[in-house]
Amino acid sequence: MTSLARDPGASALLTDFYQLTMLKSYFERGLTEVAAFEFFVRKLPASRNFLVAAGLEQVLEFLENLRFTDDELEWLARQKDFGARFADSLAQFRFTGDVDAMPEGSAFFADEPILRVVAPLPQAQLVETRLVALLHFESLIAAKAARCVLAAPGKLLVDFGLRRAHGAEAGLLAARASYLAGFSGTATVAAGRRFGIPLYGTMAHSFVQAHESETAAFLDFARAHPENTVLLVDTYDTEAGAAKVVALAPQLRAEGIRVKAVRLDSGDLGEHARKVRRILDEGGCSEIRIFASGGLDEHELARLAGAPIDGFGVGTSLVTSSDVPGLDCAYKLQEYAGRARRKRSEGKATWPGRKQVWRTVAADGRFAHDVVGLETESQPGLPLLQPAMRNGVRVSPPARLEEIRARALSQLARLPERLRGLARAEDGYRVAPSAALRLLADEVDRRQREAASG
Amino acid sequence: MTSLARDPGASALLTDFYQLTMLKSYFERGLTEVAAFEFFVRKLPASRNFLVAAGLEQVLEFLENLRFTDDELEWLARQKDFGARFADSLAQFRFTGDVDAMPEGSAFFADEPILRVVAPLPQAQLVETRLVALLHFESLIAAKAARCVLAAPGKLLVDFGLRRAHGAEAGLLAARASYLAGFSGTATVAAGRRFGIPLYGTMAHSFVQAHESETAAFLDFARAHPENTVLLVDTYDTEAGAAKVVALAPQLRAEGIRVKAVRLDSGDLGEHARKVRRILDEGGCSEIRIFASGGLDEHELARLAGAPIDGFGVGTSLVTSSDVPGLDCAYKLQEYAGRARRKRSEGKATWPGRKQVWRTVAADGRFAHDVVGLETESQPGLPLLQPAMRNGVRVSPPARLEEIRARALSQLARLPERLRGLARAEDGYRVAPSAALRLLADEVDRRQREAASG
Repeated sequence: MTSLARDPGASALLTDFYQLTMLKSYFERGLTEVAAFEFFVRKLPASRNFLVAAGLEQVLEFLENLRFTDDELEWLARQKDFGARFADSLAQFRFTGDVDAMPEGSAFFADEPILRVVAPLPQAQLVETRLVALLHFESLIAAKAARCVLAAPGKLLVDFGLRRAHGAEAGLLAARASYLAGFSGTATVAAGRRFGIPLYGTMAHSFVQAHESETAAFLDFARAHPENTVLLVDTYDTEAGAAKVVALAPQLRAEGIRVKAVRLDSGDLGEHARKVRRILDEGGCSEIRIFASGGLDEHELARLAGAPIDGFGVGTSLVTSSDVPGLDCAYKLQEYAGRARRKRSEGKATWPGRKQVWRTVAADGRFAHDVVGLETESQPGLPLLQPAMRNGVRVSPPARLEEIRARALSQLARLPERLRGLARAEDGYRVAPSAALRLLADEVDRRQREAASG
Repeated sequence: MTSLARDPGASALLTDFYQLTMLKSYFERGLTEVAAFEFFVRKLPASRNFLVAAGLEQVLEFLENLRFTDDELEWLARQKDFGARFADSLAQFRFTGDVDAMPEGSAFFADEPILRVVAPLPQAQLVETRLVALLHFESLIAAKAARCVLAAPGKLLVDFGLRRAHGAEAGLLAARASYLAGFSGTATVAAGRRFGIPLYGTMAHSFVQAHESETAAFLDFARAHPENTVLLVDTYDTEAGAAKVVALAPQLRAEGIRVKAVRLDSGDLGEHARKVRRILDEGGCSEIRIFASGGLDEHELARLAGAPIDGFGVGTSLVTSSDVPGLDCAYKLQEYAGRARRKRSEGKATWPGRKQVWRTVAADGRFAHDVVGLETESQPGLPLLQPAMRNGVRVSPPARLEEIRARALSQLARLPERLRGLARAEDGYRVAPSAALRLLADEVDRRQREAASG
């Protein structure tokens, strides 16, 4: 990881070993006909009423740029499981297939494909690991962020999680996924630069500690950032810190500096916020906002809904999706060489064939229910999977993040009310397989039972 | 993230916005004297009796290579919070400080610094976010992996988590952290290549599904991988799959291929393993091993201790540390310009000054207790923090991963028996502050109280 190191996320070797062992066999046996794989979540976690599709943009970038570099091929050629012939067969490896997907920001539910890859089997197979990783992580974080947004209506929410995110890419993509789900911004500078997400941030306790007094620290900071003066008041004693801000305000105003906000980061945030609000108001500083951080999640945000807090920084719980750090999701072969396929493993059976999801909307504009059927069917409702890539080329330029964010917020508004709360809705969202899909599943079972004797 | 994209983990902008706002103020006010920061975990999660230090190697690489690129500086110069003068002051920014740390693989406990940075304040401050992220994540995963190792003595354990890891770097570093804590290898190809970790992997269900029959799939795979034939038997029916392996064995033997193992991936793994073991043994295939995967964590591993399973693939729970996806950890200013400092925020007070940890070992070689004191003290026991970097240069070449792994395994063996179980030990490991440290804390409190009036 030197400064010249390549993004590990772009490497064709960022995959499971078995993808390569299978590829070798596919090449040797000529299993290179067209395969259809679909990504879906098997079941919703107990604490999620819906999920939010995210990560498609990163998937498309990955597929567009996928190739083995010369040094990767040389390395593969030296591995006893692979050798030079296999490495040579990968030299021209490119993704030339099709992708259909739900647009980012779409609400989705269990058993609904949110992305389909149709490509020659080795291509569709190799990309499995990376596609699952990207769709899983961003959708996971977008869903967690959406819960925070629903729990804190009208509040400014900022991603503060980079230091607890699981590595560099997790930090960047968590900033993106939370912003697209309705957060207002992030503290992660590199995410602001890469994705154009608004940046927020103030000062750490070390800044206050490095000064001989809090007052000196506040003055130094305000003068360096006259247009973005947010002062952290809890290093020693929260209310005493707030009182110092009030005492400094006239001097700062005389210098043309208006303190924008104070930040609280410890103790009972609601209790401190009420006291600090009173200190600020009684000191003639009612224009100063209160921003809070420290151990927050959607439940704490809901609990603090009545406190005089204008904005929140959410860290660990957001970027790790702490109550549900992983989803039960899969990318499964549903068709090969023109024939539908189905896995029958216990508790992990899948619906065969290329599918589409249709969403029916109620009279009030809220989502009513979905039907999952075969792509070739026609069902009432809006088809959610849309073409994203044909023959390895995008069908349209990348969607703007602001557009995705607007879509996500509109989807949250259209969720049935019972799904918008933090508790698990007893009456979950209804997703039904179509009759044709059930019939195809039975037919595939019959065929596979016959072949099982072989 | 094109194929030419730079590793985002190496960027100086992979940091919190507030690090840059503080830096601007530090430069303007001349707060550039030497600061000492320490990284520690505030308290152990309820389900951890110990943690395992990891990530130092990545921290040192990051510090050695830290600089702002021209395009990063141009971007900063254009941001209204920063401007050209600040960007210019970062052009020559390098890390020139000292690092002391516990060697990777060391067992550690709450309130013990595992790494100290001593450097001019702006340098020590800017690196906070990335250092916390690296030490937090790798130590988190190493501790989770160590629990798996303790729960499954004598079994082969392989990291299967890349697809559920939170992004590319998480996948790579989880492979490294689990290997150093005693796993036998990983399925992540890029981690095998980068870190020299042994690679494991077989076939996916899609491989079986793409063939017209299981038997055809097994034959194809065996012939492509005659020296590494591991067959996945649960795509349709686990026991029927195992019976097909038995039926194929004579033919494969005739071709010089010995099936190494079968893999089970669904249902009750212990129950299936017993049945499959019987089928293999009765079919004259007692040399074929059984490998299991699917939803495993340390508790499942312990439950399966008596099952005839030779090895396990552990995925989601390992790479997300699913029960504890984040640690309550911090990197705090403990000294600035020669004076000890201390944060007093509610529930987050820290011990001031530059510290050392001494570990006392009992007569049986097991760890007895630790003392945290001032670096300048002399205490009985082994001092755990060792010099890692001086003036921005490593004091020794990178430790070999095998060496770190041996250290970790030896540390696990030396943990008191009560800490080696999966349940929380009622009588946790004892870590005591030295008398001198307590006195210094009182003195800093007194000084800060006096200054608080200022």
